[in-house]
Amino acid sequence: MALKIALLGFGTVASGLPFLLEKNGDKIRAAFGGDLEITKILVRDDNEGYRLKEKGHSYQFVTSIDDILKDPEIAIVVELMGRIEPAKTYILAALDAGKHVVTANKDLIALHGPEIQESAKSKGLAFYYEAAVAGGIPILRTLANSFTSDKIKRVLGVLNGTSNYMMTKMVDQGWTYEEALAKAQVLGYAESDPTNDVEGIDAAYKVAILSHFAFGMTIAFDDVSHQGISTITAEDVAVAQELGYVIKLVGRVEETASGILADVSPTFIPKNHPLASVNDVMNAVFVESIGIGQSMFYGPGAGQKPTATSVMADVIRIARRLEDQTVGKAFNEFSRPTRLANKEDKCSHYYFAIETPDKTGQLLRLATIFNEQQISFQQVLQEKAQEGRARLVIITHMMNQLQLEAVQSQISQESDFKLLNAFKVLGE
Amino acid sequence: MALKIALLGFGTVASGLPFLLEKNGDKIRAAFGGDLEITKILVRDDNEGYRLKEKGHSYQFVTSIDDILKDPEIAIVVELMGRIEPAKTYILAALDAGKHVVTANKDLIALHGPEIQESAKSKGLAFYYEAAVAGGIPILRTLANSFTSDKIKRVLGVLNGTSNYMMTKMVDQGWTYEEALAKAQVLGYAESDPTNDVEGIDAAYKVAILSHFAFGMTIAFDDVSHQGISTITAEDVAVAQELGYVIKLVGRVEETASGILADVSPTFIPKNHPLASVNDVMNAVFVESIGIGQSMFYGPGAGQKPTATSVMADVIRIARRLEDQTVGKAFNEFSRPTRLANKEDKCSHYYFAIETPDKTGQLLRLATIFNEQQISFQQVLQEKAQEGRARLVIITHMMNQLQLEAVQSQISQESDFKLLNAFKVLGE
Repeated sequence: MALKIALLGFGTVASGLPFLLEKNGDKIRAAFGGDLEITKILVRDDNEGYRLKEKGHSYQFVTSIDDILKDPEIAIVVELMGRIEPAKTYILAALDAGKHVVTANKDLIALHGPEIQESAKSKGLAFYYEAAVAGGIPILRTLANSFTSDKIKRVLGVLNGTSNYMMTKMVDQGWTYEEALAKAQVLGYAESDPTNDVEGIDAAYKVAILSHFAFGMTIAFDDVSHQGISTITAEDVAVAQELGYVIKLVGRVEETASGILADVSPTFIPKNHPLASVNDVMNAVFVESIGIGQSMFYGPGAGQKPTATSVMADVIRIARRLEDQTVGKAFNEFSRPTRLANKEDKCSHYYFAIETPDKTGQLLRLATIFNEQQISFQQVLQEKAQEGRARLVIITHMMNQLQLEAVQSQISQESDFKLLNAFKVLGE
Repeated sequence: MALKIALLGFGTVASGLPFLLEKNGDKIRAAFGGDLEITKILVRDDNEGYRLKEKGHSYQFVTSIDDILKDPEIAIVVELMGRIEPAKTYILAALDAGKHVVTANKDLIALHGPEIQESAKSKGLAFYYEAAVAGGIPILRTLANSFTSDKIKRVLGVLNGTSNYMMTKMVDQGWTYEEALAKAQVLGYAESDPTNDVEGIDAAYKVAILSHFAFGMTIAFDDVSHQGISTITAEDVAVAQELGYVIKLVGRVEETASGILADVSPTFIPKNHPLASVNDVMNAVFVESIGIGQSMFYGPGAGQKPTATSVMADVIRIARRLEDQTVGKAFNEFSRPTRLANKEDKCSHYYFAIETPDKTGQLLRLATIFNEQQISFQQVLQEKAQEGRARLVIITHMMNQLQLEAVQSQISQESDFKLLNAFKVLGE
């Protein structure tokens, strides 16, 4: 038996699929007792089809989605076009046509996942997207399958390869943000408009998806607060080093007494924490749970072959479930009503870098502001003044969102204080 | 519906199971639509039963396996007694009685796994053992499910928590082997007879199991060569540091042109390799594959709750498969005829520490020995002589098992050379 697959798009990731089918055919056949065969591929226009044919590809390139939807032999549609439209319309149409769907499209899942899942569920069809989070790391299936016996308290992730490459260079090589971005663009890691990567938007999509798998709660993308790495200075990086930390862009989902919180922000990570050694374009998801305790899943967050491998794992899973006649089961069956955390329960240690005039009594004034909010200090560092301005660095004990907002507002009201940066600090 | 479970043994791991059932009941119920209930527990004798009853446990403690085998309500038997007998006899009897079986018993799986798997398969019963390798890390299920689309080239693992604790202290704190062992025994990590942990036997059991999941090949325990950490000296640790490595006990399974090789040995790991930061009692499995590339799965290798969590994940998986009517499927469906690698294909970089008389021409003699075997040097270090003896350290380029044996034999024939240690070096 050959199970027939159609691809929507034939870009970098999609063109990695034939490699896996070829190199791994025996294992795939053994896994479900049949062959997988890519038949039709949707391309933009006839020109693209001709060009791919000339390159030696023997697939049937089509330019109308109907050629795929109306083909009764095609069982699985793999969407690898990216962006929201027409991907969303095509996926819903494929489900309407009775096809199982696999995608790597994180933006789409984060923004419209529930609607598509509902459609798939109502029709008894599979809709899988392992590749949407952390590329090659099989984290979604692991959370759905192996953490059923456990209760997750917090998930922390280095989820964006581009920004992690930049942060690694800023920490290890002392590059500035601008230098790191320029190099990431030269290497093709960052797009000419790097906003999604450097402002934490891409990571926030992944955080929203992780929330569903780790806590059974669907969180709207707008409820994932995100702060990027573009304001991080060489001074922040140096002081982090001095105090025993590295700075990385970290996504977090945590269950508190009032509900879950989800955010993406630059975070000071203690050097001996496993996430601290996740470097360059690699990703990792660090899970804290009542049973296992601490575990981490590390691998490439993007790239042709890693992403194609996750996509193909989904396709094979559908093939096995078709064989087992259990294909209608949801990718993630863990589901609870969503409750969002109160600001009182959104807690972290914080790093503050504040510029003040270089005169006596500044630290006292600052300490008074923090003290009024009942925030205590864990570490304080006053750097030597330059040009009449001193730089004060504070690492606080645990504080909540209300305290953070109050102290930020207070500092901004003091005209001679300048809050340079406030970042989360991961406690040990 | 309640699915009834019997436990064989109620030691550390088993007594962690009620905690998970209590804290995670809702999620477990949602996973398969019913309750899990521990009913009977096999204990050594009536005294143990009385003692546990007095502690407030309300389970039915039995002293005869027949009380469990003949109970038609019990669907799943969880074996947590350890060692080979009577565990093996009881597991086979449970399968004969039509019960699904879960175990954490790595010794048993490594030595008698195929026989038990065959029995389970022929009866359409489940036999799972996620907890047998790397305790809390869901590595076996991940290899079986998520790597189906990939082709693994090599698996490297820090698989024994006790020896890793000791190596961490020897590297970070400069403790000697004896100091590290004494402390591990005080902390309860090492038994009074630490042979299995420090000589690599425990890790070799896990390597044998990993081979089956990563490569589909069953390897006999005797075909896993193992070398322990007891000969590692403070000088080895120091020179490793100086050359940019840490030493850890590493298990390896690798597919070569002629077949697979599996071994456990002290290994120099480059400091920037992800395995280098796996410290204390933590475990990790590092996978190299053609699709994902490099991935790593990190977590606690032992301990009550982590191990109980993996055991419970297996129990829940059986419950789900019972509901899906797919319970007869093997834990790992990937199976190929076993082929063992030739000595020519067993390759690694090596570290040699050799003591010689402190006189001219020693390095030349040594270089001649290596040159005759066509082994080239990557790094050479001659340490300052003490009491008329010099210590030469060599890191070689890639060499195979035949070359290793030849050069070891040659060195031993030179009466004034003393081969202190030869360890593998992980290339970058």
